[in-house]
Parts: sequence; structure tokens; C-alpha cells
Amino acid sequence: MGETVVVAGASGYAGALAARILHRHPHFELAAVTARSDVGVRLDELYPHHRVPLVLEELDLDRHADVDAAIVGYPHAASAPVVAELRRRGVRVVDLSADFRLRDRATYEQWYGEHKAPELFGTGVYGLPERYRAQIADADLVAGPGCFPTAAILGLAPLGGDGLVADVVIDAKSGVSGAGRGANQKTHFVSVDENVAAYKIEGHRHAPEIDQELRAAGAPVTCTFTPHLLPLDQGELLSCYVTTTRRVSQSELEERYAAAYAGEPFIELTDASPGVFDVRETNLCRIKLHSEPRTGKVHVFAAIDNLWKGTSSQAVQSLNLMFCRPETEGIGPTALTPAGVTA
Amino acid sequence: MGETVVVAGASGYAGALAARILHRHPHFELAAVTARSDVGVRLDELYPHHRVPLVLEELDLDRHADVDAAIVGYPHAASAPVVAELRRRGVRVVDLSADFRLRDRATYEQWYGEHKAPELFGTGVYGLPERYRAQIADADLVAGPGCFPTAAILGLAPLGGDGLVADVVIDAKSGVSGAGRGANQKTHFVSVDENVAAYKIEGHRHAPEIDQELRAAGAPVTCTFTPHLLPLDQGELLSCYVTTTRRVSQSELEERYAAAYAGEPFIELTDASPGVFDVRETNLCRIKLHSEPRTGKVHVFAAIDNLWKGTSSQAVQSLNLMFCRPETEGIGPTALTPAGVTA
Amino acid sequence: MGETVVVAGASGYAGALAARILHRHPHFELAAVTARSDVGVRLDELYPHHRVPLVLEELDLDRHADVDAAIVGYPHAASAPVVAELRRRGVRVVDLSADFRLRDRATYEQWYGEHKAPELFGTGVYGLPERYRAQIADADLVAGPGCFPTAAILGLAPLGGDGLVADVVIDAKSGVSGAGRGANQKTHFVSVDENVAAYKIEGHRHAPEIDQELRAAGAPVTCTFTPHLLPLDQGELLSCYVTTTRRVSQSELEERYAAAYAGEPFIELTDASPGVFDVRETNLCRIKLHSEPRTGKVHVFAAIDNLWKGTSSQAVQSLNLMFCRPETEGIGPTALTPAGVTA
Amino acid sequence: MGETVVVAGASGYAGALAARILHRHPHFELAAVTARSDVGVRLDELYPHHRVPLVLEELDLDRHADVDAAIVGYPHAASAPVVAELRRRGVRVVDLSADFRLRDRATYEQWYGEHKAPELFGTGVYGLPERYRAQIADADLVAGPGCFPTAAILGLAPLGGDGLVADVVIDAKSGVSGAGRGANQKTHFVSVDENVAAYKIEGHRHAPEIDQELRAAGAPVTCTFTPHLLPLDQGELLSCYVTTTRRVSQSELEERYAAAYAGEPFIELTDASPGVFDVRETNLCRIKLHSEPRTGKVHVFAAIDNLWKGTSSQAVQSLNLMFCRPETEGIGPTALTPAGVTA
Repeated sequence: MGETVVVAGASGYAGALAARILHRHPHFELAAVTARSDVGVRLDELYPHHRVPLVLEELDLDRHADVDAAIVGYPHAASAPVVAELRRRGVRVVDLSADFRLRDRATYEQWYGEHKAPELFGTGVYGLPERYRAQIADADLVAGPGCFPTAAILGLAPLGGDGLVADVVIDAKSGVSGAGRGANQKTHFVSVDENVAAYKIEGHRHAPEIDQELRAAGAPVTCTFTPHLLPLDQGELLSCYVTTTRRVSQSELEERYAAAYAGEPFIELTDASPGVFDVRETNLCRIKLHSEPRTGKVHVFAAIDNLWKGTSSQAVQSLNLMFCRPETEGIGPTALTPAGVTA
Repeated sequence: MGETVVVAGASGYAGALAARILHRHPHFELAAVTARSDVGVRLDELYPHHRVPLVLEELDLDRHADVDAAIVGYPHAASAPVVAELRRRGVRVVDLSADFRLRDRATYEQWYGEHKAPELFGTGVYGLPERYRAQIADADLVAGPGCFPTAAILGLAPLGGDGLVADVVIDAKSGVSGAGRGANQKTHFVSVDENVAAYKIEGHRHAPEIDQELRAAGAPVTCTFTPHLLPLDQGELLSCYVTTTRRVSQSELEERYAAAYAGEPFIELTDASPGVFDVRETNLCRIKLHSEPRTGKVHVFAAIDNLWKGTSSQAVQSLNLMFCRPETEGIGPTALTPAGVTA
Repeated sequence: MGETVVVAGASGYAGALAARILHRHPHFELAAVTARSDVGVRLDELYPHHRVPLVLEELDLDRHADVDAAIVGYPHAASAPVVAELRRRGVRVVDLSADFRLRDRATYEQWYGEHKAPELFGTGVYGLPERYRAQIADADLVAGPGCFPTAAILGLAPLGGDGLVADVVIDAKSGVSGAGRGANQKTHFVSVDENVAAYKIEGHRHAPEIDQELRAAGAPVTCTFTPHLLPLDQGELLSCYVTTTRRVSQSELEERYAAAYAGEPFIELTDASPGVFDVRETNLCRIKLHSEPRTGKVHVFAAIDNLWKGTSSQAVQSLNLMFCRPETEGIGPTALTPAGVTA
Repeated sequence: MGETVVVAGASGYAGALAARILHRHPHFELAAVTARSDVGVRLDELYPHHRVPLVLEELDLDRHADVDAAIVGYPHAASAPVVAELRRRGVRVVDLSADFRLRDRATYEQWYGEHKAPELFGTGVYGLPERYRAQIADADLVAGPGCFPTAAILGLAPLGGDGLVADVVIDAKSGVSGAGRGANQKTHFVSVDENVAAYKIEGHRHAPEIDQELRAAGAPVTCTFTPHLLPLDQGELLSCYVTTTRRVSQSELEERYAAAYAGEPFIELTDASPGVFDVRETNLCRIKLHSEPRTGKVHVFAAIDNLWKGTSSQAVQSLNLMFCRPETEGIGPTALTPAGVTA
């Protein structure tokens, strides 16, 4: 067995899925699952389909920090102090919250409020392996990207770099699991079914995160970003409409992306329009490019599973890198292996 | 009883709904329902929920043209000759196809091929009552707008008129009924369920129709328009991202639309994000405006029921105008009246 | 304007729909909508599609009991005391809870606990007009049936009466709105989507209610009743498998039901398999009969909309009877009239 | 690499999934995928999520019969001659059609018509490993069970054996993939969405198959069996209501099943009500037992994925047995391994 990992915050969708992946990972050992609610409940009672037969425990740092690594699935702000304590004890962390994603303090505070571990602010490596592979390998603290930024950056970064991008409009469509496990009127079946609407029309906090990473990719824009809630559980499609400073032909587009993503195990460039079902329960991002002759704009469609590549399997992808494992280990071998057997 | 109306092409979703509305219309008399398939079948066998107990007949112009008006629910190209013959016999027509919507012949031919009733090309009045009320009242041939253009024009027309609009990106989300009753892999439940994808990425023929009507509204742009197929049956949401030539404040926006739509019975301006469920089975268009401070763009969200306001109830709205009936008669009285009783 | 009606408990699905129907009823006047939560909110903010522009108020009996009638949409047990007070003030009541449906006190207490208005226990008329039309017309207190019992009794009562029924198995399939507006893990979209499971396997309190009414219909059995939750919002299908004491042929079956339901405005006997979509947003119950040659059993499939015929429109059907209105008034005229106009 | 396998009829849902599983199987080699339609198309164009990069070929027995085994995914009747030819050439076959499931010729002909390979009729081993493990290991021709019979027999067989079962009512709920890839009005999204209805009310051909296997399990009954179509893609829930000849207590029930299924890798006995989502994309059958005190009946709820345990992964389970592989190999190791990587 390899390094031990604890998943803190495993009662939520993201933490539970991380636990499932680690529980079956060929290398890592899932040491414990902790939660702030549902303590004492076996995880496979909450999530039968994940088939993780561990009991949720309260986080006890004296006991649970005796591991090599942790994936922390706490909400924003609640995460920072736990991460800080885990780091003090030498545990390498992949944090799924927004607490260590942003590099500008004022921007963080504007969208999330006061930071609860200011000494660590800005020290996380942005956990998008396709962009920061080397840094992640060396990192002790990885900030798992937001699900929307994951698809946005993977979809748009290859356009950056030479003043090409003038304006970006991102229309995002998300399944309901993106809203988390919290039960409220917005996630009630009757509210979502047979419906679609934009949400957070006044501003979504993933917008500055997308801006930050587009800028880092050489595309310094203030993006338009509006998410919509759809009647499906998992999956996220980003439709990006890019105004460029010069015409980019279809073939140039395709060559540019082929070059940028050569050898990437989790990027699929496709001729067909990508649907979220195509990437369901995978760590893949599936991308379609279109150069629109009527307007000269570049259209990019990027589909991911918000819980997998958008969150939990991507966290394990980082963990693989951090511990010198094959990047695809446990999250997409050569197989779409089928599932579940009783122990 | 008032004028008699035949619905030709009543076995499809649009025609069947038109038949339902007319069958219960306080004024018009539904004289017959005709179809090219399913002849001899009672309409309430195909569509129990519409509860129209008439038998589908083959269209017999000698018999069926003996009416005051017709709603024609044929596919593009198939419609034109039937409409022409009905017009020759003096029947006033609301045509649901694209055959009489466009005013530029070359554009029509580019997207739809040769026109099958060239003598009538360009003679139809565009059947969007909120834009062409007076002309519809006088018209003998009304071209029912496409469902996407209906929402697009209602959502964007008030921005036209003084050089304000510089660029328009429309991201459309549609339920499956918009694809029609034809059964194929794209409309198979298993293809649509838990999925979302853009379609007609290379170009959708509603784009030039939107351009035409935005130009008529004083916004001469080449719009970006991309539709997406969603796992729901009825409903259409258009998310419009408008670049303006100057900043438009939220209050200016709201005043502009309030003025444009004062007294309109079927336009709802709302503070909440409009969902397609909010307008399901109504002739309403529900619109939310947002002036985005980060980018200066104007966002417009417009929701309709693609089969109702997007097609069939809007056709009856035109019919009401053509025969001097109250515009809301039979399609949204003072009531959300409940439904069906066995005769 | 006719009699005034208050809807108490109008923030829930059932009460809100009752308010919608009464707000547009040709005769009754919706005097007020009250609620225990969301007071001060306009009902059309909670339920835009109902388009009832009234503000939810706290129930104030001094003010709100100054009406002719009330529909009470409170939960079980909470309802009884309010109903009692309304009755004391002379208000005629249709209660949507279970508090006045059962006639056996011990059975009530076993399933619902102590009754909170014992003086009224057993005084309600069971509000299923197809069974108790005359009694409802004279009643001051009508107990609206449970949604499952509504479909079960309408589907099975015609088999009662001459010792025909030996055993009844009812497998019920329900949309999520039947679980009410409360947001919890069971009604979370992600829990319901792509899923189906039986619930209350250990016993559902509608079972004794069905038994009571089947007995009253001459079929004294202890039924098997198991409900299942389906990924749809409104609608309820009951599949009933009846063991009879002698073979009943298909034609005898059909004649029996045709006779039993002759002239009933809200019963549809159909040859096709009834789907819940066929009766969506109607006060109809659609029934298919099958005499199974392999086993000799009688199969009855009955579909209703759980919120309409199963609850709110049926309550208005009773109200119509209580105030000598046409039974179908406001809940199924000769029309499937389309919907909503801004005031 | 181990034995080579061809999947014939790989353009349908069942064949395509079998191809996916075999393509990633640790032992077997997927030699070819053949189809009667879509020849020349790469399978991952039809089914991107399966990620099988093989091109569909026409079946050429001279070439394709040069394998060790075949999974045949043809429709009933079309399958028999192909299976016969494969057998003549010494290929061991798992057939997914109904052509070799039934043991009574008259029954087969009544439900499916004339048999197209009468010399082989009755020679297939019924491919339910939990019932016929030893025989499957020795078989050259395995008849993959129907999806409904799979769940029915797994759910009910442990009740057989000592005259316990007097009557069985099975109410089945199925996702749309059970209806196959054929696009028609019944599988159109708009027909299924927000709907549920029974189908094949007059009789479903899985009923005699269930009877045959229940009889073999010691429960000689003529079952009541009615399937219902639900708005979900994969998954099947059977609710079984069993009349027994004596009372069976909850503990006796549970002990009986625990004994019957001790050591079975793919059977989950659960306390919670099994949902189809719990077994989605697995080879598992999840079963809940309930002894109902009101009626004395035994209720059994059994959930499977109709495409996996109900068809394709179960076929590979048989293939594993036939070639002396570990029974769980490739279809549910110790892992719920995540998916898909570009080659």
C-alpha cells in the first residue's frame, strides 16, 4: 500500500466521490472519512452507489493528521483553518474550496469575505494539471479549481498568448449536483424539473477565478460568465463565444489546440458537439472548436463532469502528481471498468 | 359561432396544439384537422392531453378551403404550395413554416433551398404581434415567426433604434419538442436524458431571421446564435449578451423596456431570473434585464414556451388580430383555467 | 361575484394551486391567502406560473373567518384545530389534510397520533364527489381524500358490491410534488433523478384510508399498497392487480365501469394505457381495464394529477357542489383554456 | 492476451456495452464489432461514452468466426441462424436474444413465432450464473436472460422449493434503454418525459420466461407481470408481491435470502429501499425484503441496471465462467474504477 489519505468533509458530493476514488485507487490508502454532519453513518448508507463501507468520523486532527495527504471538501471559509492545521502537521493537502485559488487578496475578500488563514493566502498551487503540472508535483498545498473555471480554462487557454483574445462570453450550463447536497427550494426536484434558468445573474464568484487564469494564460480579459441550472444531475457544458483580434480559421484553431493538448490524457478534441453525457463519470474534458464565418468569432464548447474533472477526480489527478504516481492512476486507466461488488 | 378555421398539418406538435386552442376558442370554429400522416386517426388518440375529438383527414382543398382561415403546420418548403392554393381560394392563412418569414430571396434560398411559391415570396406579414400588430390585422398571409426569433426579438427589440447595439451573442436553450415529432436518434429519450449539447454549431437558419428582425428594430447586427438541446419537453430560454456602444444603466434598461412593453398583455418583465417553467403552456414571454458592471454589457434573459408563444398560441394571437377579436381571446383570458372534461 | 373563500396554508403546493384555481374561478372570490411561512411574500413570487398576485398573510381568524368557505392546506394534525375554529365561526370547510378522512378513531391514532379536534372526528364527508356527491352538497366539513386513495377508489369502487373482490394489490407511482414542498434529501433533485424506489415499505397511511373506502364500496379487503417515487413532478399512476372470486371477462368489466361512470364529467375510460401526462393539470381520472387470461386477475390502471384531481381541483369540485355551482365550474369547462396574462 | 471474442450486433445498446466491457477486459480480446447497420462507423462515434475505437463491420462468418467466443446482440428470431452458424464453426456463444431461453417449443412459438434454428432449440443454458453457474461453465451456448426475468428470478428464487409460493404479482418499472435504440413515438423524449404508463398490458413475453425459471426454482406459478416505462435511461426495479402458503416472518425471510446468496459477489441484500441509481452501471442486483403484517404477503424489491446485469455485463459474467476466469473479472473487480482516457 502507498501513502495514506484522509478525506475531510466526505458527506458532501465532492468529498464522497473523492473517497470512492481513493478507496479503489491502486496506490493510495483511504485512511478515514470525516464529516461535520452524519458522523457515525457509513458512507455507503448516504451514497450506496459509491460503495465505500467506511464510517464517517468527526475530524480529529490528532488522529487524522497522521496521514500523508488530505483532500478537504469543506465549504469556502470553513476550509482555510482546517487546511492550515493540516499543513502545520505536515500533511500535504488538496483543498476543494475556493480558499486558496485566488491570488489577489482584495478579490478574495470581495467575493468570499475575510480569509480565515491569511498566512497561507496565495501559497496554494492552482490544481489544474494541464496548466500547472510541474508546480503541482512539488506542491504541499493544491487549490482544486472551481468546476466552471476548470472547463473554462481548459477550453480557452490555448487561445491565449499573443494578444489574440479581445472578449470572452461564457454561457455555462450545469447539472444540479454543482449546487451541492444542501436541500433547499433551488435544489428541490419540482423546482428544477422541466425548467432552466440563469442563476447568480448579478455575478458569480467563479468569474474572477476565470479572469485570473485566463490572464495567466495570456488572455487578459474581463469575461462575461453566466451559469444556468439544468434538469440533470452531473455534467457541465461551457459555450464560449470569443471575439478575437484577427480572424482565426478552423484549421488554425484545430492545430493550435492539437498542439497545446498533444499527449494530454484527459483532453478530447472532437468533431462532434460535445455532450455532458459523453464525459459522465470521467476525468475527461471534451472540446469542440468552431470558427464562425458570419461573425469571425471563435466558439468553444467544453464539457466536463462537474463532480469528476470539475472537482474530485481532478483532485486525485493532482494527488497522483504530488506523489509521483502515474497521472491517470485510479482515475482513468486504459479502462472504463465496470463497477461494484459486495465485499 | 364565428369564423371557421382549418388546421392543416395537425399531426405534428405545432398543428395539434393549434387545433387544441381553436377547438376551445370562444369565437373561432375548428372546421377540420388535416394531416399527411395518421389520416383516419382521432387527434385525441395521438395527443390525449389535447382532447380534440376530431379525426385527421387528408387535405382536400375543394372541401377544406371552404373556410375563413387556415393555420398551416407543414414543414418548410412543403408549406408554400399549400399556402398558395389556400390564398388563391381566398382563405386567410397563418403559416407556421419559414416559407414566408424572410424578406430576402437569396437568404431564403441559402438556408432553405428553392422557394415553392415564388409569387408569394415576401408578401407575408411577420406574425409577431408585439412588433407588427397593425399589419397583422390587415394581412391575408401571416408568417408565424420561428420560436427562437420570437424570444430573441421580444428580448432585444427594445434595445434597437439609436445605434445602441454593437454586438449580440445569443445562447439558446430549447426543450425537445422544438425538434418536432419526428423520431430519430437525436430525439430518442436515451440520447437527450442527462445530457446537454449545442446543435447546428455550423449555423442555424433562425440566425438570419433574427438578424432581419433586429435590423428592422434598428439594431443592424450579425448575431451570434447557438441553440442547445436540453432534457425537457417544452420551453425555450434565450440568454442574450449585448455589447452596447455606451453604458446603459440598470434603471435606463428597465425604463426602456417598461416603455416599449407598456400595455402588452403577453410580456412579463421580471426581477427574478425567468425559468421556462414559469411560462409553460402560456402565450407569455418573460424577460429579465441586467446591466453588468464588470463588462458594461447588457444581459437579457427571455423565456417562452416554444410550442405556445413560440408557435401555436402566437398564431392564434395573430388570428385574433386578423378577425378583429380581442388579442388575448382563447389564449390567455383573465384565467389560468384548468383543463379537460370528457364531452 | 359569488361566495368568498380563503385558502389557509397557501404556501404549500396544494394550497397554492387551490388559490390559483379559485383566483380564476368564474363564481367564487378568493378573499385571502394565508400561510405559516413566507408571510408578506406575494404568491406569484413563490409560484410564478400560478400568477396569483395576492400577498400571503398570517391567518387571522377574526378577519379571515369572515368568509363563506375555506380550503385548508395544513399538514395533518395542524389542520384539525384550525378547521374546528373555522367551523365554530360558521365557515364551511374543505380540509386537505387527513384529519377528517378516517371514520375509525383507533386507526387514525395509529397512523397520525392524537386527534386535535376530537369533537369533530368523523363528522367530515369524504370529499370524493364521484362517490359522495349528495352528501358533499349538504356538508359543512368536507375531508379531501388523499391523492392515492382518490385514484384507488375511482379505479376500484366499481368492482365492489357483490363479493367479487377477493384481494387487491396496488402498486403506486408518484411524482415528487406528492412529497410536498419541503426540501430534504428525498426531494433533492440529485436523489430523484435517474432513480426509482419504493418508499414507506413498512406501511403508508393511505392504506387504511383505501381500505375504509373500498369497504364502503362493497369490497371489504385489506389492500396491499406500496408507493414509489418517480423522476417527474406531477402525476400519479396506480396499477391495481385484483383477485376476483370469479372470472370477469373484458366485456363485463368494461360494461360495469361504463355503467358506474355514465355521465361522470371527470372519468375517462380508455382503451390505451393511461399515462400521467394524459391528465396533467386536469381534474380527470383516466382508467384502463384489463382482464388477464393467464391468471384470471383483473388489472386496473388509473392515472390522475396528484395535485389536481388528487388534491386541489378536487377540493374545488367539492366546493362547487357545496354551493350549488355546476360541478365542473372553474376546473374543466368545455375548454383546455391556455394560460396567463399579466394583469 | 486471452481468448478472442467478437460482438455481433454491436450497434445496439446491449451489443455496444458488451463491446465496451470486453474492450477493457483484463483477459479477453475484443476481436471485432459487427453490425447490420452503421457499418463503417466507429463505435465511439455512435457511443462516445463507451470509448471503443473500433469500426463496425459487416458480419463475415469466414473471418469473424475465427474467434473463441461471440456475444450476439441481434433481435429475437434474427439471432438464431447466426448463432447456429457460429456454433457450427465451433464458436462458443452467449446470445442476448430470447431465441434460446425458453425450453418449451410451443411457448416460444406463441410469443416469438417460428424458431429459425430448431435443431438448437432448448440446447442453450440459461445464463443466470447465480442459478446455473456449473452448467454455464460447461456450456457452448448460453442464453442471456431477459432483463426483467433476471431481476425477477434473482428476487424470487430463494422463496421457491417447499411449496411456499402461492401467487406472484410483479410490477416492473423500466428505463427507456430497455426499449432499445430504435427511435419511434414510444422512445421519443417528449412521449416519455413527465410520464409513466404501463405497456404491453395485454401480455409481455418475459412472463413465460419468468414462469419457467420460477418453476425451475420450485415455485410453480403463473405470474402476473406488467412492465411500466419510466422517464429515466437505465435501470429496472421490480416490485414483487408474493402470496405465500404460510406466514413468513421478516427474520425468516432475511435468513433464507442470506443463506441463498452467501458468497454471491453480485447480490446485495439491503435494509434500505433499493433504487435503480444504486446499481447504475454495475452488475449488481440489490434486493430488499419485507414481510407485510397487514396482509401476510411477502414483498420483494429488486433493482438492476437493465443494460448491465440485465444484459451485457451478465453476458460477460457467463463468458468468464465459460473460460474459467474469475467470475467478477472485468465487470466489477474490487473497484468502482473511474473511466475514460484518450488512447
